[in-house]
Amino acid sequence: MNKGYFITLEGPDGSGKSTQLELIAEYLRQNGREVVCTREPGGSEAAERLRQLVLDPQLAIDARTETLLYLAARADHLDKVVRPALASGKIVLCDRFSDSTLVYQGFVRGLPLQELLQLNTFATGGLEPDLTLLLDGDPLLLAGRRSQRGVTDRFENEGLAFQLKVRQGFVELSKAYPQRIRVIDALQEQESVRGCLISELEALLKG
Amino acid sequence: MNKGYFITLEGPDGSGKSTQLELIAEYLRQNGREVVCTREPGGSEAAERLRQLVLDPQLAIDARTETLLYLAARADHLDKVVRPALASGKIVLCDRFSDSTLVYQGFVRGLPLQELLQLNTFATGGLEPDLTLLLDGDPLLLAGRRSQRGVTDRFENEGLAFQLKVRQGFVELSKAYPQRIRVIDALQEQESVRGCLISELEALLKG
Repeated sequence: MNKGYFITLEGPDGSGKSTQLELIAEYLRQNGREVVCTREPGGSEAAERLRQLVLDPQLAIDARTETLLYLAARADHLDKVVRPALASGKIVLCDRFSDSTLVYQGFVRGLPLQELLQLNTFATGGLEPDLTLLLDGDPLLLAGRRSQRGVTDRFENEGLAFQLKVRQGFVELSKAYPQRIRVIDALQEQESVRGCLISELEALLKG
Repeated sequence: MNKGYFITLEGPDGSGKSTQLELIAEYLRQNGREVVCTREPGGSEAAERLRQLVLDPQLAIDARTETLLYLAARADHLDKVVRPALASGKIVLCDRFSDSTLVYQGFVRGLPLQELLQLNTFATGGLEPDLTLLLDGDPLLLAGRRSQRGVTDRFENEGLAFQLKVRQGFVELSKAYPQRIRVIDALQEQESVRGCLISELEALLKG
């Protein structure tokens, strides 16, 4: 049986994570690997219900409640989807994971990182990704590229100060965990980004 | 303006918490206090939705997910209901709170108490009850009394070993926090239990 690998994609909205996740899944499948594509928050039935709850503006939940809901969704997602897939030798590609909690609830919303790390370790039971691919780029340039393509979404609505904090958070994490987190220039052409991601994956799979 | 007080009732299912909560609320109102009666898990819109999710057997959530959901519900309940009521000088009577998490997820399900305490402090922002009234009694006798009254519920279904662990957990907490937690003999007549609770309340309100 193949060894399972847990690979996460991180970066701001608009950095191309979802598209690239599909491209590298296709590559891995063509190379004979079984791949599970998933995302957070979500990926299991309870977690998808929690996703709806977190994103419901009527409920106006505060930062602590939001954090605990994301972590509950993570615990269930790991229990129902990720751990079983890893145990059966699959490669799990996950759009967002723990680093997003540290960035959005910690660096951006201001909750203490040390507490978030402890809470997250409780939720994950200590499971960490084998590899994290961080799609990074200047928020202004990423936004410009997206508006050229006619895409309007949350990315544009949050404001530049927010996007700069998000970027700074991810970059700081990549410095704190250089073995696990690989920074990929998200402003390259799509094909070049794909190439960078695949060479990181191949290095991992070759051990 | 009156000073707000946060008072929790704890004890196993079947110990008479809900009935006594109504009785002491009535007493306090007759004495001119504004009272908010609430419960956990629940008490706010998001928390009630989480309660349904936790109690849905189809979802089969594990102990860690369950804990995080209870804590998310607590954080929202405090934010939306408890803190505003305390800030406006009301007395909040809450059926179950942090001690139930320590007992059911810690003593009974076996999650580490130290981690649960840290997680709970994150969820509550450090808010603790001014007084906790623990309704305590031998599980066999409590069960016997309830079956005499024709009540069949979760209490009977969990089994005696479970009920003994629950009792032991609550009793240990009452020894760890003797200033906050007052142990009331739940096997007395209803009127006597009410009398004990009211004298604890009066002692608190007199300062």
